[in-house]
Amino acid sequence: MSDLVRHGGAPFRWAGVPVLAYKEEGTHFRDVTRQVLFEPSGTGAGALDVQLRYFEVAPGGHTTLERHAHEHLVVVLRGPARCLVGERLHDLEVNDVVHVPADTWHQFRTGDEGPLGFLCLVRAERDRPRRPTPEELRALREEPALAAFIRV
Amino acid sequence: MSDLVRHGGAPFRWAGVPVLAYKEEGTHFRDVTRQVLFEPSGTGAGALDVQLRYFEVAPGGHTTLERHAHEHLVVVLRGPARCLVGERLHDLEVNDVVHVPADTWHQFRTGDEGPLGFLCLVRAERDRPRRPTPEELRALREEPALAAFIRV
Repeated sequence: MSDLVRHGGAPFRWAGVPVLAYKEEGTHFRDVTRQVLFEPSGTGAGALDVQLRYFEVAPGGHTTLERHAHEHLVVVLRGPARCLVGERLHDLEVNDVVHVPADTWHQFRTGDEGPLGFLCLVRAERDRPRRPTPEELRALREEPALAAFIRV
Repeated sequence: MSDLVRHGGAPFRWAGVPVLAYKEEGTHFRDVTRQVLFEPSGTGAGALDVQLRYFEVAPGGHTTLERHAHEHLVVVLRGPARCLVGERLHDLEVNDVVHVPADTWHQFRTGDEGPLGFLCLVRAERDRPRRPTPEELRALREEPALAAFIRV
């Protein structure tokens, strides 16, 4: 990967960066694309052992409701949108910064306004996401606002 | 630090995030501010051991010409501007992504168009930057384009 990944061609597209499916398979998300903007290349003590992705969620779409041991650091580039982190719902605007702690339920959703686009940073080596069991989903849905927000 | 750092109040300012001096002291930079948007809070294997800063360089300003063992991952939020990475000069636009490898000279500069604003990711534990010796500066300036760009 070059030291410069140039934005352009179209809004929120980058030269030489393919627009990928959000995940390989599944029906637990909707209208989400993924572009990988940085992967580790260094090996020294100061090397960044992270992957930086840009995700875009089309109007009416949503990411997977999931949790995992690895953290997310998110910066919103296109909005507005909404997200769930733990048991809290947040309205999101451009340049808001969201931290998803380890083992915390989260989901990003758009309304009809336009796409949600966000940078998402993760450790390069990380565990696989886990979706809620029927029992966990029932517990989340005990809160009416969460029940209305969640898509599975 | 909360799980949501909300942008607002003014453009490229965040609620509860102080606007700091770029560095504690020195005359080797000009008109640069720093806002820290994320610091490590987790401790598990999936924790993000990084700090995310937003730097803003006013028109006519520049960051320090320096290098260090830790890498930088930069995303431009306000532009245009220019930067030096190694021995290459790059024009920068909004949403361009710049990787500064370990031990690589780098400097960011603005013209008169407007401020340069960029996210900069680093490892939380990192070495101190090092400025060029007179000898190293002489070597960099052997290339006329670099000689014209560099500010010290």
